[in-house]
Amino acid sequence: MIDAHPYLVGLIGTGVLPSLTPPMHMAEARALGLTYVYRPLDLTALGIDPERIGDVLAWAERLGYDAVNVTHPCKQSVLAHLDRIDPVAAALGAVNTVLFTPAGRVGYNTDTTGFAAAFTDGLPDAATRHVVQLGAGGAGSAVADALLRLGTARLTIVDLDPARSAALADDLGSRHPLSAVDTATPTRLGEVLDGADGLVHCTPVGMAEHPGLPLDAALLRPDLWVADIVYRPLDTELLVIARERGCRTLSGGRMAVHQAVDAFALITGTRPDPDRMTAHFLDLVAADAPASPAIPR
Amino acid sequence: MIDAHPYLVGLIGTGVLPSLTPPMHMAEARALGLTYVYRPLDLTALGIDPERIGDVLAWAERLGYDAVNVTHPCKQSVLAHLDRIDPVAAALGAVNTVLFTPAGRVGYNTDTTGFAAAFTDGLPDAATRHVVQLGAGGAGSAVADALLRLGTARLTIVDLDPARSAALADDLGSRHPLSAVDTATPTRLGEVLDGADGLVHCTPVGMAEHPGLPLDAALLRPDLWVADIVYRPLDTELLVIARERGCRTLSGGRMAVHQAVDAFALITGTRPDPDRMTAHFLDLVAADAPASPAIPR
Repeated sequence: MIDAHPYLVGLIGTGVLPSLTPPMHMAEARALGLTYVYRPLDLTALGIDPERIGDVLAWAERLGYDAVNVTHPCKQSVLAHLDRIDPVAAALGAVNTVLFTPAGRVGYNTDTTGFAAAFTDGLPDAATRHVVQLGAGGAGSAVADALLRLGTARLTIVDLDPARSAALADDLGSRHPLSAVDTATPTRLGEVLDGADGLVHCTPVGMAEHPGLPLDAALLRPDLWVADIVYRPLDTELLVIARERGCRTLSGGRMAVHQAVDAFALITGTRPDPDRMTAHFLDLVAADAPASPAIPR
Repeated sequence: MIDAHPYLVGLIGTGVLPSLTPPMHMAEARALGLTYVYRPLDLTALGIDPERIGDVLAWAERLGYDAVNVTHPCKQSVLAHLDRIDPVAAALGAVNTVLFTPAGRVGYNTDTTGFAAAFTDGLPDAATRHVVQLGAGGAGSAVADALLRLGTARLTIVDLDPARSAALADDLGSRHPLSAVDTATPTRLGEVLDGADGLVHCTPVGMAEHPGLPLDAALLRPDLWVADIVYRPLDTELLVIARERGCRTLSGGRMAVHQAVDAFALITGTRPDPDRMTAHFLDLVAADAPASPAIPR
């Protein structure tokens, strides 16, 4: 009669109702024979000011939640409400996973560990001597940290806002003293890409609401690998054109899956099957956008 | 890819951590192939004043709960925080089940419907011309209302506190004008039981913390049916002695199961299997008290 613990998990943020993370976790749990309820807790839909993240956390803990994922705009503000923060998340200053444990609330960042896993998995043996990153926002920060942990020797941050790229580069440089982190304005992109091994795209361009290409297609040389963190659509214009030009590519879907793989492992103590979670994810994306073109795995 | 709704349900009250209701619901849901997490929300353990039932309800609703069961000491106070109340529960002035629906919070009382189902199920064809009830507390109120709905012609309420029995009798009489509801002091028990069809016991006597018999065993005639609402232990001293004397008996376990059967049906819209829930319940009771004597089904 002693059953496995039934899990209760939430996703806190604004506009999270359409997120694929809850169904991804639940499908994997079902495959593992676990009882697992994962609720989107959409602050916009609930009319809760994101500044009340502390109240939301406290009540989630009281009402029996085992853990929550946290997303925009609470990834930084949540830190003040935790008892312990994993060193990688603490260094980043951003948490996307909170476990409610008997010893207190513990924060992790599976965006950055998820990108690292996705990169290792999807672009094995990709050179990381020099990587150029477009976008210095929150997602960019998590991705850049992952690239530096994976041994990128030189990382060039390119952002429309030079103050933002400079601040991120300073921060990354101080935490990764064995690597070189510099910045460039978008007008110098051709120059910095010349001789680079890879390009990582971390801006919203290419999402359904922001269609288009984030750079001149002529800059995509065949020997450049190209990673996108946008995953709706899964096959962004950037990735389509990069493949046409012969580049190896990494879709944002892999990061989306691996952040969920890592969060699921932290929450349950059970390592999920990344291939099965990827298959669920692709099914969900297909169900979400039935008219989309064939989906590359 | 369209899955059944994953259910999230709670039990709000003081001292509810050992309740068998959560595992009973979850075992039935598992048997039906439903994902169903049922959390005990113990106000004592959480350090939440029961007067904050409104806050607890509001946050449970925000945090994705589908429904809650409500027990001592909140069954009355919860009414002020509901949008709609089932007529039977409204008449009783007590709610033990709250559904969070798009149209608002709706309250029901499955203690009273559960007792009615248990009675019909466990004592089919029992005469209800005259029933004597020991105990005029909250549980007694739910049981008395069920007996009157089932057609009891005369109900005699016996309680140590004559004001409490008089108040309950007045209330019941005004709501069930076709039945006669009277009261008696415990000293007149022999007199009122003389010629009665059945006895319902609704005080805590017989529970592990209140051992003993609630009346003189000599009053238990073989032609009297005896129902107990105590279910820990399942086999109370009252039921053991009543059976020895040849009485038909109804254990409190049946009411415990049927309140859960009715709540489960309201929450999921799916009628559970009462026999399977009874089997789960008996397994749980056995696991809970491994040294207990053989359990009568």
